[in-house]
Amino acid sequence: MLDLDTYLRKQRDQIDRELDRRLPAASTRPAVLHTAMRYSLFPGGKRLRPILCLAAAETVSAALSPAARESAMRAALALEILHTYTLVHDDLPCMDDDALRRGRPTVHVAYGEANAVLVGDALQALAFAWLAGAPEDGAQLVAELAIAAGSQGVVGGQVEDIAAAGKTPTAETVAFIHQHKTGDLFRAATRMGAIAAGASPTQLDALTRYGDALGAAFQITDDLLDAGDPVSAGSAPARPPPLSCLSVMTVDEAQDQVRKLLQAADQALAELDAIRRAPLAGIARGIKDRKT
Amino acid sequence: MLDLDTYLRKQRDQIDRELDRRLPAASTRPAVLHTAMRYSLFPGGKRLRPILCLAAAETVSAALSPAARESAMRAALALEILHTYTLVHDDLPCMDDDALRRGRPTVHVAYGEANAVLVGDALQALAFAWLAGAPEDGAQLVAELAIAAGSQGVVGGQVEDIAAAGKTPTAETVAFIHQHKTGDLFRAATRMGAIAAGASPTQLDALTRYGDALGAAFQITDDLLDAGDPVSAGSAPARPPPLSCLSVMTVDEAQDQVRKLLQAADQALAELDAIRRAPLAGIARGIKDRKT
Repeated sequence: MLDLDTYLRKQRDQIDRELDRRLPAASTRPAVLHTAMRYSLFPGGKRLRPILCLAAAETVSAALSPAARESAMRAALALEILHTYTLVHDDLPCMDDDALRRGRPTVHVAYGEANAVLVGDALQALAFAWLAGAPEDGAQLVAELAIAAGSQGVVGGQVEDIAAAGKTPTAETVAFIHQHKTGDLFRAATRMGAIAAGASPTQLDALTRYGDALGAAFQITDDLLDAGDPVSAGSAPARPPPLSCLSVMTVDEAQDQVRKLLQAADQALAELDAIRRAPLAGIARGIKDRKT
Repeated sequence: MLDLDTYLRKQRDQIDRELDRRLPAASTRPAVLHTAMRYSLFPGGKRLRPILCLAAAETVSAALSPAARESAMRAALALEILHTYTLVHDDLPCMDDDALRRGRPTVHVAYGEANAVLVGDALQALAFAWLAGAPEDGAQLVAELAIAAGSQGVVGGQVEDIAAAGKTPTAETVAFIHQHKTGDLFRAATRMGAIAAGASPTQLDALTRYGDALGAAFQITDDLLDAGDPVSAGSAPARPPPLSCLSVMTVDEAQDQVRKLLQAADQALAELDAIRRAPLAGIARGIKDRKT
C-alpha cells in the first residue's frame, strides 16, 4: 500500500536535488541573475507538476531505460521552472502586484523589477534548453511545453485573466482562463512524462485525460480553499479576489464538479497498470482532501 | 554579381510573408494578445538575423532538401521572434522605458505594460514551438537558441547592461555585454542555418566564426552611428546614452576593430563555396558602409 505523504516527500526531495545540481551556480556571471533564479525556485512549493510528470512516466513501464528516466526528469524540471517563471511574472507590479509569495518577498521586491522580468525570461529559456538535451524525444517534449506555455496556453489564460479584472465573468470566461492558466500545464505534465517514457497511444490518451481532470479539479479546490480563507496567507490584503469558479457556481455545485472530475481521473487510470498507477491515484485522492 | 539590395529586399519580403502566414491570426483568442504580437513584428526592421540564418544555410549545399529548407526557415523565423521579444521587454518602463520604437509607440504604450510582458513571453514560447516542429534537427536548433537566449546569453547581457547603468564601464564589461546581448544571437543565426542545412563540421566552424565576427562588427558600427547621432530618431530625449564601446576606445580604434573583424569574417568565408558565400560576403561589406 502506497504511503502518499512519504512518496510525495521523496519525489519533492529528488526534484529539489536535481534542480540544485543542474541550475547554474549562484556565482555564475551575472551572479545577481543566477542568485535570483535560485531564490525564485528555493524553497519550492508542492512541486506538483514535476511530481505528476515523473509519476506518469512510472505508469508506462516497470523498467524504464536510463534514457527514458533522464528524459522524464528533464521534462519534470522544465515544467517546474516554466511554472516558476509564470509566477515571477504574475507577481510583477504591472500584473498582480504581489509583495509576498510563500511568506517571502517576491522576486521583484527582493531583486528589482527589471531583474524579475529577466529572471522569468531566463527560466523560460532554460526550460527549453533542458528539454532539448533530453536523450529521448527532445523535440516532441519541447513542442508539448511550448504550446502549453504559449499564447494559446498559459500566457493566453493570463491575458484573459487580466482583461476580466473588475468585471463579472461569464462561466465560459472562467472556464477559458482556468483551462489555459492552470489546466494546460497539468495536461502537459502527464503527457510529457508519458512521452518521455515511450507510452503507447492508449497510455498517452489515458494520461492526457487524467491530467485534464486533475488540473480542473485542482483549480476548483483552489477556489474553494480561497473562499474559506478570503485573505490567503502571504498575500497583501485589499486586493481584488482572484477569478473564481464560485462567481459562476455554488459551493455545492463546485464540490459536485470535483467529485465528477476525480471520477473521470480514476476512469482514465483504470486503463493503466494497477500497481504502477498507485501514485497518480493517490494524488487524485489527495486533491479531494487538500487543505493547502 | 550579387545585387545586395535586391537580395536583402527579396529575403525580407519572404521572411515577412512567412511570419504573417505562420503567426496565429490577430482574431485568435485572446485577440488583444495576438494583435499585439503582430504589432510588435510588423512592420519589421532589417530582419538581419533571419537573413543571416537563411544565407548561412544556402552556403552549405547547392541543392538543399525541402526538409532542410523548411528547418532553415523555421530557424530564421524563430530568431526573429526571439529577438523581437527581447526588444519588447527591453522597452518596458522598468528597463529602458522607451515610448517609441521605429517611430511608433512601443508595445507597452500601445497595449499596456502587462500585455507587453505577456507578448514577450508568448513570442519566446512560440520561437521554441516553431523550432520543435522543424523536420530536421529540431532538438539541436532548440538547444542553440535556448542557450543563446538564456541567462548566459542575451538575458545575461541585459542584466549586466542594467547593472552598468550610470557607472563608468571597464572594457571587459563592455565586451561581456556586447558579446551576450548582441553577439550570441548573431552566432546562433549562422550556426542554426548551418545546422538546419546539414553543414559539415568545417562548414559549421567557418559559419560560427563568420557569425561571431559579424556580430561584433555590427555592434561597434551601431555605437559609431549612435555617436554621430546622439539622440537617435524615435527615442525619447534626455535618456542616458546606451553603453558604447566608445567609452573604452577611440573612434579610430573602433573603426580599426571593425576592419579587423570584417577581415576575420572574410577569412572564415574563404573556407566556403565561392559562389554560395556571396550573400554573406555582401552583408559583411554592408556592415562597413552601414548608415542605419
